[in-house]
Amino acid sequence: MSNIQITKKDNFQHLLSIEGMNKELIIKIFDIAETFLKIGKNDVKKVPLLRGKTVCNLFFENSTRTRTTFEIAAKRLSADVLNLDISSSSQSKGESIIDTINNLIAMSGNIFVIRHPESGMPEYIASNVNKDVHIINAGDGNNSHPTQGLLDAFTIRKYKKDFDGLKIAIIGDIKHSRVARSEMHALSILGVSEIRLVGPKIFMPDDIDQNKFMEFNDMESGISDVDVVMMLRIQKERMQQEIIPSEENYFESFGLTTELMKLAKKNAIVMHPGPINRGVEIQTEVADSAQSVILAQVTFGIAIRMAVMTMLIDKNI
Amino acid sequence: MSNIQITKKDNFQHLLSIEGMNKELIIKIFDIAETFLKIGKNDVKKVPLLRGKTVCNLFFENSTRTRTTFEIAAKRLSADVLNLDISSSSQSKGESIIDTINNLIAMSGNIFVIRHPESGMPEYIASNVNKDVHIINAGDGNNSHPTQGLLDAFTIRKYKKDFDGLKIAIIGDIKHSRVARSEMHALSILGVSEIRLVGPKIFMPDDIDQNKFMEFNDMESGISDVDVVMMLRIQKERMQQEIIPSEENYFESFGLTTELMKLAKKNAIVMHPGPINRGVEIQTEVADSAQSVILAQVTFGIAIRMAVMTMLIDKNI
Amino acid sequence: MSNIQITKKDNFQHLLSIEGMNKELIIKIFDIAETFLKIGKNDVKKVPLLRGKTVCNLFFENSTRTRTTFEIAAKRLSADVLNLDISSSSQSKGESIIDTINNLIAMSGNIFVIRHPESGMPEYIASNVNKDVHIINAGDGNNSHPTQGLLDAFTIRKYKKDFDGLKIAIIGDIKHSRVARSEMHALSILGVSEIRLVGPKIFMPDDIDQNKFMEFNDMESGISDVDVVMMLRIQKERMQQEIIPSEENYFESFGLTTELMKLAKKNAIVMHPGPINRGVEIQTEVADSAQSVILAQVTFGIAIRMAVMTMLIDKNI
Repeated sequence: MSNIQITKKDNFQHLLSIEGMNKELIIKIFDIAETFLKIGKNDVKKVPLLRGKTVCNLFFENSTRTRTTFEIAAKRLSADVLNLDISSSSQSKGESIIDTINNLIAMSGNIFVIRHPESGMPEYIASNVNKDVHIINAGDGNNSHPTQGLLDAFTIRKYKKDFDGLKIAIIGDIKHSRVARSEMHALSILGVSEIRLVGPKIFMPDDIDQNKFMEFNDMESGISDVDVVMMLRIQKERMQQEIIPSEENYFESFGLTTELMKLAKKNAIVMHPGPINRGVEIQTEVADSAQSVILAQVTFGIAIRMAVMTMLIDKNI
Repeated sequence: MSNIQITKKDNFQHLLSIEGMNKELIIKIFDIAETFLKIGKNDVKKVPLLRGKTVCNLFFENSTRTRTTFEIAAKRLSADVLNLDISSSSQSKGESIIDTINNLIAMSGNIFVIRHPESGMPEYIASNVNKDVHIINAGDGNNSHPTQGLLDAFTIRKYKKDFDGLKIAIIGDIKHSRVARSEMHALSILGVSEIRLVGPKIFMPDDIDQNKFMEFNDMESGISDVDVVMMLRIQKERMQQEIIPSEENYFESFGLTTELMKLAKKNAIVMHPGPINRGVEIQTEVADSAQSVILAQVTFGIAIRMAVMTMLIDKNI
Repeated sequence: MSNIQITKKDNFQHLLSIEGMNKELIIKIFDIAETFLKIGKNDVKKVPLLRGKTVCNLFFENSTRTRTTFEIAAKRLSADVLNLDISSSSQSKGESIIDTINNLIAMSGNIFVIRHPESGMPEYIASNVNKDVHIINAGDGNNSHPTQGLLDAFTIRKYKKDFDGLKIAIIGDIKHSRVARSEMHALSILGVSEIRLVGPKIFMPDDIDQNKFMEFNDMESGISDVDVVMMLRIQKERMQQEIIPSEENYFESFGLTTELMKLAKKNAIVMHPGPINRGVEIQTEVADSAQSVILAQVTFGIAIRMAVMTMLIDKNI
């Protein structure tokens, strides 16, 4: 993609994908997120950094969970939040998406958090709307989910300090996962030594860059000696299409169990973007174990989203 | 129920049902609600007691009215409010309700207001989620609706001062009403002298404690000489099941009329949890009469909910 | 209509329609809106004028766009905003609309923004609910849409300074448009010299007051020499009823094109209440031209709604 995320003056204008970000920018986001994590422990969790600004959540695909994290992050920054139910709005009256957003800009929307089933839609919008507005991609098709990729990498930094020397396994339907795609870009940029893609052949991307990633089609070897296990959610919709024979069958071959975790490093952590399917891609005992940092990811996700919104609005931070 | 509402250190942790509360706690809620009623008369009605806290409304059963009262109460305390549309969220993706709530806790939800069609669900949730979070039951099955029970008893105190010596009639489908159940517990604990349950046989609970409650199957004797008339809403859904022959028929036998009100004490008050069905369980003239305190109940309901939320969060109040 | 908008003490109590307002009141709204436009340019756009007040959006007809403008205006005034989804609320339980609103008043709603498919419903509500509450009509049937009429007239003042001497064309389905009706009243009261109604015969109102309005059934003569072109949205629903043969057909006869704009005054402005149908009632080139002030209307609409709400609440402004 053309890098319209960063302006010619080197300002952070949009967050569309991890691709096109450099290590320095990602580390800066993490450092600012750290300060917001501290605020999250205060009794009063609000800061006035976005007071008087309006954040519009435009979700063309249903996701209460992700929308809620952006809403909480924005409110904690004292922004006004608009949740727009797009399916029941002007779209049905035949207005183009660019006209809809230009209208919201005219009402003084400052940040637009967009989830859309079509890959590339947030970038299309960022390229076509009036200037001086910020687009955050909250997931587009199977292309990208950059705040998830950032919060996942941030979680790893919290538990492992350095990316250098780490062995990390991403496990599941990598081919169709925007989360996996964003994680892969983030971990590459941050210099992780060994990034493994683990899953059945049908779940592997067609064009794996062998210089960056290693493919494994069985769990035992894929998980062996890793520092971090990043599970992906199995989308039940895909099972109904009979791509996966059954939940039990998948769990038997690629479900994460306490047995398998014994092959990983002793202090390995287990991650999952949620919502988890207990007994499908992950055993209940693993999800609830001391190695699981799944709920910590959620907490960190608020801080990452606060950091991104603040940096988009405030050039001097 | 085991009393998980109150911690071993005697802290008020959850509000799940009136059962298990003692008179002292209820009176304290009322006294704090009084102070919020005064604030409600100010020009600026906001206080910063819950600033930086997040209240999540989780309604698995539709109720704009009740949800709105909690939303207003929380906003008046300066809390951030999240209304989560559960039907369209992770539940449909197969996530367990406890996982959903643990996720929201990880996002820093502090108070969860839960309405659920299954009896006991709020208690189940309170027993299973991570600590340091507060559950308020906003109605579960036909089990309990404690804030309604509290606001009703508070309304009686506002108009009658003392509970001692009062005769109170609860009228309608007591058997299936969570509101009636919470009212009965509240009035018992507060020491009301005579609590009457009035309605057709099919609407009477199976196991009435004769030491606490008196059963009446006709309006004339049930309402005679009472200080307070507490009507229940007739649920039209039940009529469609032909349990009640017709609206007209029910109104003729158990509808509250100005004629019937002449049998009550002269200064008796009329209450109803709303929404009222004019001409079904209550005559329009009675609903709009000087004796009706139905809209006052709504106003008091905001103050009661503010008091409960404040006490849950602030142990030192 | 009886003028219940203005109390006997000359206070501005409700905004139900432009009819019944005088020039002085409209100009005062415009002058106050000007001050809010300036605030809109500040970095922090909030003012505390409605702090502690509650604005309830009651939309019985779907309109994300209009509801959002009221929500933004209210939040910028620091009010608490409740968006009530009426279709799923007490209405379905058989409660009357007046009971619903009296309940919301008891919860301390101060301003009720109401959109309803039936003409006259906001006035009916204003006449029947408890006192000391303010109703704003956000569109009722094909009767009135006063804030749109006000913001349109305000937009003209911004670009043309004086109403005196102006020639203005309102173009489209005037007969069924509440927007046209409110524009016609506003421009008449403000003393516009020549107000033209342009469209096919079937779109002309039955009873045009010839002293105030001129009818044109072709675009060339209708648009000739005007200062302002006010387009109306073609409602596709009506096309399906075969009142208009087809979109292409309508565009050929009454679509606004760059060719036609050459007949208007050189500095004429183009307005549209949105959402626009590109290629149906307006050519893309015209919508995006320098003469188009369509997005400015949206910005001004926030300021107008802030002015109206502030004036309803604060008698001394």
